Amino acid sequence: MTLPERLVPPRAKGSSVARVSKAWYIACSSGELGKKPLEREILGLPIVLFRGHGGEPGALLDRCPHRNVPLSLGRVTQGNLECVYHGWQFDRAGECKKVPALCKGSSGGGAATAFGCVERDGYVWVWPDAEREPVGEPFHFPLVGAPGYTTVHQHVAADASLHATAENALDVPHTAFLHAGLFRSDDRERNPVDVVVRRWPERVEAEYIGEPRPEGVVGRLLSPRGGVVQHWDRFHLPSIVQVEYKLDAAHILVTAALTPESDYRTHLYAVISFKLPVPGWPLVPVLKPIALMIFNQDARLLRRQTEAIRRFGGEHYVSTELDVLGPHILRLLRSAEKGAPEKAEKNGTTSAPKEKRFRMEV
Amino acid sequence: MTLPERLVPPRAKGSSVARVSKAWYIACSSGELGKKPLEREILGLPIVLFRGHGGEPGALLDRCPHRNVPLSLGRVTQGNLECVYHGWQFDRAGECKKVPALCKGSSGGGAATAFGCVERDGYVWVWPDAEREPVGEPFHFPLVGAPGYTTVHQHVAADASLHATAENALDVPHTAFLHAGLFRSDDRERNPVDVVVRRWPERVEAEYIGEPRPEGVVGRLLSPRGGVVQHWDRFHLPSIVQVEYKLDAAHILVTAALTPESDYRTHLYAVISFKLPVPGWPLVPVLKPIALMIFNQDARLLRRQTEAIRRFGGEHYVSTELDVLGPHILRLLRSAEKGAPEKAEKNGTTSAPKEKRFRMEV
Amino acid sequence: MTLPERLVPPRAKGSSVARVSKAWYIACSSGELGKKPLEREILGLPIVLFRGHGGEPGALLDRCPHRNVPLSLGRVTQGNLECVYHGWQFDRAGECKKVPALCKGSSGGGAATAFGCVERDGYVWVWPDAEREPVGEPFHFPLVGAPGYTTVHQHVAADASLHATAENALDVPHTAFLHAGLFRSDDRERNPVDVVVRRWPERVEAEYIGEPRPEGVVGRLLSPRGGVVQHWDRFHLPSIVQVEYKLDAAHILVTAALTPESDYRTHLYAVISFKLPVPGWPLVPVLKPIALMIFNQDARLLRRQTEAIRRFGGEHYVSTELDVLGPHILRLLRSAEKGAPEKAEKNGTTSAPKEKRFRMEV
Repeated sequence: MTLPERLVPPRAKGSSVARVSKAWYIACSSGELGKKPLEREILGLPIVLFRGHGGEPGALLDRCPHRNVPLSLGRVTQGNLECVYHGWQFDRAGECKKVPALCKGSSGGGAATAFGCVERDGYVWVWPDAEREPVGEPFHFPLVGAPGYTTVHQHVAADASLHATAENALDVPHTAFLHAGLFRSDDRERNPVDVVVRRWPERVEAEYIGEPRPEGVVGRLLSPRGGVVQHWDRFHLPSIVQVEYKLDAAHILVTAALTPESDYRTHLYAVISFKLPVPGWPLVPVLKPIALMIFNQDARLLRRQTEAIRRFGGEHYVSTELDVLGPHILRLLRSAEKGAPEKAEKNGTTSAPKEKRFRMEV
Repeated sequence: MTLPERLVPPRAKGSSVARVSKAWYIACSSGELGKKPLEREILGLPIVLFRGHGGEPGALLDRCPHRNVPLSLGRVTQGNLECVYHGWQFDRAGECKKVPALCKGSSGGGAATAFGCVERDGYVWVWPDAEREPVGEPFHFPLVGAPGYTTVHQHVAADASLHATAENALDVPHTAFLHAGLFRSDDRERNPVDVVVRRWPERVEAEYIGEPRPEGVVGRLLSPRGGVVQHWDRFHLPSIVQVEYKLDAAHILVTAALTPESDYRTHLYAVISFKLPVPGWPLVPVLKPIALMIFNQDARLLRRQTEAIRRFGGEHYVSTELDVLGPHILRLLRSAEKGAPEKAEKNGTTSAPKEKRFRMEV
Repeated sequence: MTLPERLVPPRAKGSSVARVSKAWYIACSSGELGKKPLEREILGLPIVLFRGHGGEPGALLDRCPHRNVPLSLGRVTQGNLECVYHGWQFDRAGECKKVPALCKGSSGGGAATAFGCVERDGYVWVWPDAEREPVGEPFHFPLVGAPGYTTVHQHVAADASLHATAENALDVPHTAFLHAGLFRSDDRERNPVDVVVRRWPERVEAEYIGEPRPEGVVGRLLSPRGGVVQHWDRFHLPSIVQVEYKLDAAHILVTAALTPESDYRTHLYAVISFKLPVPGWPLVPVLKPIALMIFNQDARLLRRQTEAIRRFGGEHYVSTELDVLGPHILRLLRSAEKGAPEKAEKNGTTSAPKEKRFRMEV
């Protein structure tokens, strides 16, 4: 299959948009995919999901090869997806299994474009490159079901590029302004902390050492007595962002798999696991609205950022050393676009990272 | 006149869009064009219609040559169309008859672009090629006013190319799916019928031989006792689609003249004439809503097809022999774009057609 | 700074759009700019206005150099504009004065793009070319505060190019059609008047000699007894339009500074000064709604003209000698785009004008 050029428009100069198609992305949660076909978009590709024989999920390009009507308008019958227009039927591999009214011996219908599709950890994952066999397994979320841990799932979406969304999720300095009062704030004595950045071929990590417990609502909830926080931010190719906090007996790990719907629309499937000195589940109804409030502040900001980028025809960024992970994430995404990280993985990712250290006033 | 490039954008690769400008198209019914100018669009050209001296209809490009304001905002005065901005007046030929405030002897205003325009059979027809004199007469609808026949007129529009609209109107296999229950259905024994396709230089016809009366609502209404249907589907350049049924003493002829408003918006002006063993007119109030229901199912489907085509940047069709007329219609439209069918007509269209025969399970 | 190409798209062929960036334009009235930053657009450039130290107005490109978020979302703190995302602060010159969390000795943030900005006559004026130092002073409105004169300010906007807006404002023949009854009308004996056009390198003037007082509402209000009007229409680079009437002891001067928000959106900041035989202020509540009615008729017409221009991909005008000032205005704007009028000004603008004379039936 050669995709129409429209689906792969040239990237604006200076853009932070990356299009990593050789990767597993979450298309939906397992619960969202029932008896009806489901319409999704990944990297600008219209995709239809359905459950074939035995309930196994399948993913096809959402366009009937016959007359180009979306297959998602059809229905599932005996494990095949049937087009609403002329009733052509396709299986999970895209093969055309039936063309109604055709006499035996006549040459049959064409195949639909199929994508790799698996179900893991309660999510349906798609490999949006139809020309290549999927390599490896989807990312596995750690700490889910671990003793003493409570896990919460959350799906949100932002009108921003995958890079801008990931950078925002792992950015510390903006929390004192955009989320003033909730996390950190600006009207106070600042504390110098050490920042250590460690780089591997397919991931990057920032460790913040010596930060007193933040003064905001979130910090007070988690540790009323104060203390010093251990804090890591991580990005893992192709699209995993992770924030980890430790404070005395409290441990919080937020892992989100990002899915690029299109150049400037990104989904976050977040899995939040935490262990607290007190039982965790009573905190869920309190923390969830706060987390959503923080996310909505970010989503509004990211949308305005995207509008500005569109208006000016591209990004034009100036960074300081406080932009700790953003430039590294872009470099990783660019190398993944070229296929480089695959090679790197073969060489093993446990090799010693490159390290850099500096100070920040948090 | 050289049209701005904007009006003739390049056609997407693999597109089924055809732009046959040397042809008569219906712009409106006679009743729609009264004392006020009327705004229409044919092949992407904004056109203003008005009644000049003696009520004769005229068609001009909907743009005053002076300051480019739409002439359709103006009024008709003494058989001329007057621009709302400075009062310039134009006749049916586009000639500028008056520039108010201009002293005698000063050089006058420019002409408006005029199109061929005639009134026939209750419709106003326009020839949307301003650079060529119209050739021949508009298509004449048969059986209107014939003894024993009832005639109904219907105007609908679809968000689809002229080709997709014509193919859909003349397509048999989709009726068992998109219109399940109304016409034919899929959950039944199918019957093999013979299909004969006949091609002439400017038209194509498919004859279906041996089909038992369809089981759906429409078939039962027309012939409660059953029987064997005689059935022809026809396409005639530039844009005439025709469906004919005979069943015992019943005879139905649906003829529709299609008008391409733009690449993906097509009007159907349908003239339905029928003769039944019982008087025809009491059936009109019953058949009209059913016909509209069928058309609305097609219109919804065609709009989704067009959306998919736009999303993917063009059509990418795979056909089987069940796509009886669609590929032939496209070939005819392509030859008409190049002007070939005109030549063919000179050689006479009564020459023997090319014939092809195969079987279909209807 | 090199502007993204998106901001300077190529001009359509035959377009009347002119982009004179080396000029002072009104961005807002003094009263509109308070403690909060204000978002504006000039020549397609997103601009943020704010009051710096001492209340002096500043104008920056509305894009934080750091992560491209609109600066207009931020706030003013101690005379600097603070970005909402990470709290970077900029002064009136665009210099980055603070990057929160950055330790001393680290290299700081980038500068914002700054534009020339001054406050004169109750308006904030911006010079929308960041690459050049402003030359000269903004246009000064005459007769404001002169003895015996009443002055009214009015701000309106039209969806049309600066050229189309200026031509419309100074066009006489359309008043009998678009504003029939209010000003002049078409159903009457017309009077021949002499028109004298005088051209200087940076301005053009038309004088109408011998016109009887117009019959419409406006004329009757200003001079119940009739008489002969003295009337001048003027255009002054870069964007000043002026209409002057004298009739016995009555004197009306309408001066409007036009601001091109974008290619097809233009603001008019009008200053109307008049002296009448009777006190002027009681007339204000009567004349203002009439003036707005006239302007709204023009604005609707101009929007339809712009829609037609967009639809056809550009202007395609045919003129007669009745288009007295429009073609001259376009020539002036084109020369200003190339920077020519600056030179002309050095040679002095008091040199004798080129004169042309003809007759018009008003």
